[in-house]
Amino acid sequence: MSFAEATAVTGGPGTWEAELEEGWDILGVTNGGYIAAIATSAMEAETGGRRLISANASFVNPARSGPIEIHVEILKEGRNLTVARAKITKEGTDLVYTTGVFADPERPVDDSSLILGSPPELPPPEECIRAEPSTDARFAPPFVGKVDLRIHPDDAASLMGARTGRPLIRGWFRLTDGEPLGPPAIVLAVDAFPPAIFNADIAVGWTPTVDLTVQVREPAPAGWLAGRLSSRFITGGMVEEDGEIWDGSGNLVALSRQLALVPR
Amino acid sequence: MSFAEATAVTGGPGTWEAELEEGWDILGVTNGGYIAAIATSAMEAETGGRRLISANASFVNPARSGPIEIHVEILKEGRNLTVARAKITKEGTDLVYTTGVFADPERPVDDSSLILGSPPELPPPEECIRAEPSTDARFAPPFVGKVDLRIHPDDAASLMGARTGRPLIRGWFRLTDGEPLGPPAIVLAVDAFPPAIFNADIAVGWTPTVDLTVQVREPAPAGWLAGRLSSRFITGGMVEEDGEIWDGSGNLVALSRQLALVPR
Repeated sequence: MSFAEATAVTGGPGTWEAELEEGWDILGVTNGGYIAAIATSAMEAETGGRRLISANASFVNPARSGPIEIHVEILKEGRNLTVARAKITKEGTDLVYTTGVFADPERPVDDSSLILGSPPELPPPEECIRAEPSTDARFAPPFVGKVDLRIHPDDAASLMGARTGRPLIRGWFRLTDGEPLGPPAIVLAVDAFPPAIFNADIAVGWTPTVDLTVQVREPAPAGWLAGRLSSRFITGGMVEEDGEIWDGSGNLVALSRQLALVPR
Repeated sequence: MSFAEATAVTGGPGTWEAELEEGWDILGVTNGGYIAAIATSAMEAETGGRRLISANASFVNPARSGPIEIHVEILKEGRNLTVARAKITKEGTDLVYTTGVFADPERPVDDSSLILGSPPELPPPEECIRAEPSTDARFAPPFVGKVDLRIHPDDAASLMGARTGRPLIRGWFRLTDGEPLGPPAIVLAVDAFPPAIFNADIAVGWTPTVDLTVQVREPAPAGWLAGRLSSRFITGGMVEEDGEIWDGSGNLVALSRQLALVPR
């Protein structure tokens, strides 16, 4: 099953149907990025072809595979931008609330450019460590088997049960079906890497995501994306994770930020 | 009028009333951080005393002073966290949509700590340059007269009509009424500084904010907050602005991220 099929929505306008496919889970709980990707698909469909440039998602209940409904409202439709929000429900339970800003892909844009950053330095994918789904490793949950995720060897200690001491994860991500990566795939990518905090010198077993925000700067061609995820501040039981996603030509694809809880 | 008075909400539950006070504007358009602060007040009131830890706001129409309504929905109420959303309307027009996560201030929290950052190095406030409202300067709009905002001399070139070349603004912020700073005041603070991009070597006159996200790590005592706002990436007509807000004792108060448009 292609990623496009796994995130396909039908019906609409207003109420869309989709399926949380099996296997996209961590210990049975469906990956939040995958759910947010489906919400993105539904909102993009509702806008009639505009493309996500910014989204946030608040996760309110854990999800499991099965049929879902995505309820979409257009909040504002402008000449170039549309703002929409969506609620995903499953059997009457709300799973996630999202708001997104969508742009006409053909709109004229300013060509000013500022790039104070660069893609992560990564060995080629074949020299990175592939995250393979396993039944006993919390860092390689089933859903990583749906994509191709390769972690920088220097950052993969957490996959092996050790820690590097630096809350940093760098690696490669691609879909396994060779498709270009639109906003839904990019939303998935930012949430696909293991939490950077697992590499910190902090005894943390799991960090539930409270909310996720992502800016999609441009879609990516088929192939590898390079990701750098890092955390800087654990305070008051909270930690942020900031992500950058770059395409294979060195273009910035997306910026992300999550707020996660550090359970006691 | 104190900040608490300027952001007070009445009525509820569900629908709250407030006033967008005069003078909190940029060329007549009410400051987005001030509006988001009122939305925060209303959502906190609706939760019955829980405190904002994360919020996002999508701005859909420019606002002007006058009476507004804040429509609040509780999306999820958990043992420690509440998720709520709000819509602000003025005379039937929607101005802003927000979603927020709120926590019980008395909840037990993990005491793990990681601080990979530090407050900006700033001269004392009296050696910084105070942003004074003026009628002809877009960088010192009327609303800065409602607060006390002092910019690092090295970063204040944009206030003087020049540019430093670095998209960075550091400075001090405080309320003028000597009150402690809860989440509404912190939401205001992150949006009070001039855009960092005004210091970049880019011909940018104004940058409308599309959305704003803020993580409030802890309230701040009365007095000065230190802010560092910076941008790294202008691509496709979009720019992010990332902010850190620290209190006078060197504690991290908030992280923020905005997406703004770079008009042609």
